[in-house]
Amino acid sequence: MSISLAAEPDRLLPAEPGVRKIARGLLELVSDLPIISPHGHVDAAVLDKNSPFPDPATLLISPDHYVTRLIHASGVPLDRLRVGGSTAASPRDVWREFAKAWPLFDGTASGYWLRSEFEHVFKLEHEISEATADATFDAIQSRLSEPGFRPRQLFKDFNIEVLATTDDPLDSLESHAALAADATFQGRVLPTFRPDAYLNISHPTWIENVDQLITTAGDGTTGYAGYIRALENRRQHFVDHGAVSADHGVRTPQTLKLDRAEAESLFNKARRGEATETDRDAFEAHMMYEMARMSVQDGLVMTVHPGSFRNHHLPTFEKYGADTGHDIPFAVNYTEAIRPVLQDFGTAEGFNLILFTLDETVFSRELAPLAGFYPAVYVGAPWWFLDAPDAMLRFRSAITETAGFYRSSGFIDDTRAFCSIPARHDASRRIEASFLARLVAEHRVSESRAAELIVDIVDAAPRRAFKL
Amino acid sequence: MSISLAAEPDRLLPAEPGVRKIARGLLELVSDLPIISPHGHVDAAVLDKNSPFPDPATLLISPDHYVTRLIHASGVPLDRLRVGGSTAASPRDVWREFAKAWPLFDGTASGYWLRSEFEHVFKLEHEISEATADATFDAIQSRLSEPGFRPRQLFKDFNIEVLATTDDPLDSLESHAALAADATFQGRVLPTFRPDAYLNISHPTWIENVDQLITTAGDGTTGYAGYIRALENRRQHFVDHGAVSADHGVRTPQTLKLDRAEAESLFNKARRGEATETDRDAFEAHMMYEMARMSVQDGLVMTVHPGSFRNHHLPTFEKYGADTGHDIPFAVNYTEAIRPVLQDFGTAEGFNLILFTLDETVFSRELAPLAGFYPAVYVGAPWWFLDAPDAMLRFRSAITETAGFYRSSGFIDDTRAFCSIPARHDASRRIEASFLARLVAEHRVSESRAAELIVDIVDAAPRRAFKL
Amino acid sequence: MSISLAAEPDRLLPAEPGVRKIARGLLELVSDLPIISPHGHVDAAVLDKNSPFPDPATLLISPDHYVTRLIHASGVPLDRLRVGGSTAASPRDVWREFAKAWPLFDGTASGYWLRSEFEHVFKLEHEISEATADATFDAIQSRLSEPGFRPRQLFKDFNIEVLATTDDPLDSLESHAALAADATFQGRVLPTFRPDAYLNISHPTWIENVDQLITTAGDGTTGYAGYIRALENRRQHFVDHGAVSADHGVRTPQTLKLDRAEAESLFNKARRGEATETDRDAFEAHMMYEMARMSVQDGLVMTVHPGSFRNHHLPTFEKYGADTGHDIPFAVNYTEAIRPVLQDFGTAEGFNLILFTLDETVFSRELAPLAGFYPAVYVGAPWWFLDAPDAMLRFRSAITETAGFYRSSGFIDDTRAFCSIPARHDASRRIEASFLARLVAEHRVSESRAAELIVDIVDAAPRRAFKL
Repeated sequence: MSISLAAEPDRLLPAEPGVRKIARGLLELVSDLPIISPHGHVDAAVLDKNSPFPDPATLLISPDHYVTRLIHASGVPLDRLRVGGSTAASPRDVWREFAKAWPLFDGTASGYWLRSEFEHVFKLEHEISEATADATFDAIQSRLSEPGFRPRQLFKDFNIEVLATTDDPLDSLESHAALAADATFQGRVLPTFRPDAYLNISHPTWIENVDQLITTAGDGTTGYAGYIRALENRRQHFVDHGAVSADHGVRTPQTLKLDRAEAESLFNKARRGEATETDRDAFEAHMMYEMARMSVQDGLVMTVHPGSFRNHHLPTFEKYGADTGHDIPFAVNYTEAIRPVLQDFGTAEGFNLILFTLDETVFSRELAPLAGFYPAVYVGAPWWFLDAPDAMLRFRSAITETAGFYRSSGFIDDTRAFCSIPARHDASRRIEASFLARLVAEHRVSESRAAELIVDIVDAAPRRAFKL
Repeated sequence: MSISLAAEPDRLLPAEPGVRKIARGLLELVSDLPIISPHGHVDAAVLDKNSPFPDPATLLISPDHYVTRLIHASGVPLDRLRVGGSTAASPRDVWREFAKAWPLFDGTASGYWLRSEFEHVFKLEHEISEATADATFDAIQSRLSEPGFRPRQLFKDFNIEVLATTDDPLDSLESHAALAADATFQGRVLPTFRPDAYLNISHPTWIENVDQLITTAGDGTTGYAGYIRALENRRQHFVDHGAVSADHGVRTPQTLKLDRAEAESLFNKARRGEATETDRDAFEAHMMYEMARMSVQDGLVMTVHPGSFRNHHLPTFEKYGADTGHDIPFAVNYTEAIRPVLQDFGTAEGFNLILFTLDETVFSRELAPLAGFYPAVYVGAPWWFLDAPDAMLRFRSAITETAGFYRSSGFIDDTRAFCSIPARHDASRRIEASFLARLVAEHRVSESRAAELIVDIVDAAPRRAFKL
Repeated sequence: MSISLAAEPDRLLPAEPGVRKIARGLLELVSDLPIISPHGHVDAAVLDKNSPFPDPATLLISPDHYVTRLIHASGVPLDRLRVGGSTAASPRDVWREFAKAWPLFDGTASGYWLRSEFEHVFKLEHEISEATADATFDAIQSRLSEPGFRPRQLFKDFNIEVLATTDDPLDSLESHAALAADATFQGRVLPTFRPDAYLNISHPTWIENVDQLITTAGDGTTGYAGYIRALENRRQHFVDHGAVSADHGVRTPQTLKLDRAEAESLFNKARRGEATETDRDAFEAHMMYEMARMSVQDGLVMTVHPGSFRNHHLPTFEKYGADTGHDIPFAVNYTEAIRPVLQDFGTAEGFNLILFTLDETVFSRELAPLAGFYPAVYVGAPWWFLDAPDAMLRFRSAITETAGFYRSSGFIDDTRAFCSIPARHDASRRIEASFLARLVAEHRVSESRAAELIVDIVDAAPRRAFKL
């Protein structure tokens, strides 16, 4: 693999020369547009403190479960990658494991992003390989000590206009406040309200979480009423700090409208530790309905990310914790599940509901039809395993003929890998240009409309869907 | 968007010049063949009466839920589109809303059809836009008053040989009879037996429908025996009026063979209004079995259209009625569900069973394998949200390697939008040419066989599958 | 259809000239590599005895349910194809039916393989057609009487290095032993342990099978302990005869870890013929867990082939037996189902678990993510209805971006049609070259890495996944 692939100006564009030429023209229109990242997992404190990044492995490998998972699949235990706080290996050892495993990444989205970062962010002169492991480690390490590689400078160099983080409802949001108050920092760094640990009864610390939530933010009210009040209050706290959306990492897309007495009874049962699995499902589905109701009131865009079996390999979870590469998707169904919410709020003024999926079958079958009728519904961009070149093309092909180009959310990088943000957005823009170029070549969209559409997709769509 | 896209001779054909050339050659072989439309929703009375179409909006926008849904998704209430009989807006106002929303249709199947109609049927000189809304409304309105735009003349100009309608079992079929008896009208307009409202217990007026059915056509027999007799009689009435198929818009593809006593007991329970959800499902599944049995006897081709959650948004249904753009597909499974019918009739002489799906996953997984073994089974053409260029290519790719080219139904326009019929069939022919051209270019099918195949697909397949 | 299509050097390669050129270069690197066939259904006795093949129909048509099914779909009863031992028709009559039906095979995988065999194995000079039926029958018949068409010579000419068969656990494996001991035969012919009939309670002769198994191989132990012991012993017998894998044709991918007492109790209940459907499912799922446990111990690669509704058409099954063309896939889910096995053995040293599917949706959603984390998991090659050109491209597109190129099993022909083996492997290599060529043209993989990858995919991958 040659690092120079990432320098190819036509990378990811379709091979057919006529279509490529059209795609190249469309890409030019958007390649300098600022990055809008309305959903991701970068820590705001990183930008607030602006400390130098520690070392190549700690920056690029150990915390990125997209990367460690594939090395693990080749038989390398996670402690040799310093996953989950392990310090059994040194960062340099981790980098050597990575360099050895690098050929495994050919053809993958992660490999594409990393290669782009090596070329465009770190300007590496050597290809990654076992032989160059130490040299590349040292080269990146050296870059990281330069002032130009501090988080705030990269934020500026990456041309990021908006970056949303994902935050606990009880987070003080002090880093966000500090950044907003800091006249020397120009970007918008917005919090996102993510209440899973307070809504999901089966969360290991749900009872304590709820106790703390009510105590902190319930205005003195207790029980279910205090719980609802506290959630409303904390959402307002997020709104006050610039949040535009609330994100929900649910098991399934199920929603349900319970009457107050039923909801209260399940809530009390759950706090006593007596909720059954059925109770749990009903309560969580009900709380999704409640979140939609609150979104209609406070204006936070509601994003739903269902369908991942979290922590599939229990021994790994127990040793290394969550988000360590073994969340595995499963089939989901939106049509019946989301109906209670859409029944009541699908045409509600100002309500934006963005539906994501890891199950591609849902795109043409359910999400495009839903977004093609309900003003509230936007089709979430291809997410997680699906934000890759071929998968993004399949997405556009699956939804456009039913829902057109104006009913999807715009690209979401959803990443905790800060340095991969430009590569991800660049890849997405290249794929949008490729898809549109084909439609132009097939005389399905005029070239002038394609030029408008790509700017809309890259720039206007995320602003529209996320109210930016 | 330029209307002239619809004038491009190579529209929808693959971009690669070598493949496009082959496709163009194949397309030429079928572009002048007559249209065979064995399943659709045009009203026979329109052709019988041959009245002029009222105005552009009433013809092209208000009744077409493909079109109104996407405008609605952009936030326009349906009464501003005169949906469901609303007269809150004038036809001209509706057209203005449509013109404003026109950019939303880029990339969609509906946009493609409309653009084709504007170019080839109405020969509009202006592109649709907010600015040209009144001019285009007036231009079409003026065309509609010309004698050449009466339904019968368009039928002839569209080169339609056969047009099937979809009709209530108790319909007198007088329009069909009148057309058949009219020596001045050359086309075949055939009724289709569609008994959903008499088979589906959960239909709001099922009890009254059944009462009327038995009274009208039960030969004096009452109860379940009268019900079955009446259905058989009405099917015969349709056969006598030229019907070739019976269509079934079922919730799921479930079929079930109950013994007579069980069926009778469920039927009686349902007429007393006491049927449970389980009873309902069992009875409907049983009646699908009965419909298959009758098809074997009377020769009507059986078509099955499952997997749409009808009237998903209850408030819209209550205000505007059914077929207003919020029927949303869901996952279906045919393999086990259709087995009771195939067990008994899958190899029955002369039985044709055409299976449609809105869930694309079923094509390669279930329908192609079923149609590749059972002489009775044909894979239904891509339907509803799937009769779009990319989706039709995915369909051919999904089924051909297992079932070949002779086990699918041929194109079905399934439309109530009369003026869109030529555009839909033309698009389908272009896609078939595109798919075959790729196989030719990849040396998988010879050019001479491709020439035979495209004629078979366009012309012979629907005649074969629908016994025309 | 021209037989000469099979002689086109660029067959199956992408049409775009630039991509085709790259694909051609990649194909050249692997077209002379030996065939490794780690999973299939050829009978070892055929090679051991080396008898001439009887006649064209008995060799190529009657036993190949891929072929007979599509002829059957056109209305030809299976007895006219000598299926299931029927002798109602002569081989020549069967061939005539086939020749008449030959146009139905255009575009199908089976048609592609047959055309390749006619060109490259039998060197037919005439195209297949009704008119040439007798001439082509005679030409092949004549070839079959030549010494060069004996099984062992073909094995050598086909350049087969390894051929795995599929065998009953109580098979003596004497043909395998004889071949291994025969210095005049150079290939490796390996047995595969396939215990479905001993694990699946609903198998019609399960009770007798189990009795015989315990009696034969239980070391005198009886009951559940003897059953487990006997399975372990027979697996060892297979290992001693060169087996590298155990294959499991299960209904669903469900696995379950029961404690010994529970398993024993279900086993005893089943032997008394008292097992319910729930018992059956639980016991089968448990035995999958046991098979995994044994694989960890004895090193046999575990392959899982779920999701086919066997013998869908009961009347055909009753008349002609199993494997007669009406096994129909259905939707499966691996994520939760396979978890019990992966929980305990997903990272076990030396455990290889290859997961196949007939439900394509599982590739991107479940199998690529699983294989991208668990060292034990390999994604099984596209199987059965999916080992066709377009389907194989969809497979690579679906898994590569998540799992890369090193986590799949390599091609599996899975065939009982001996003479189709070269055509199948050749088609697979052409598709791998096509997929890689596109990635090269899109600057996603360098040309030099693509050259390494295609050799790995064709040669190293099956050796790695199957421990050859």
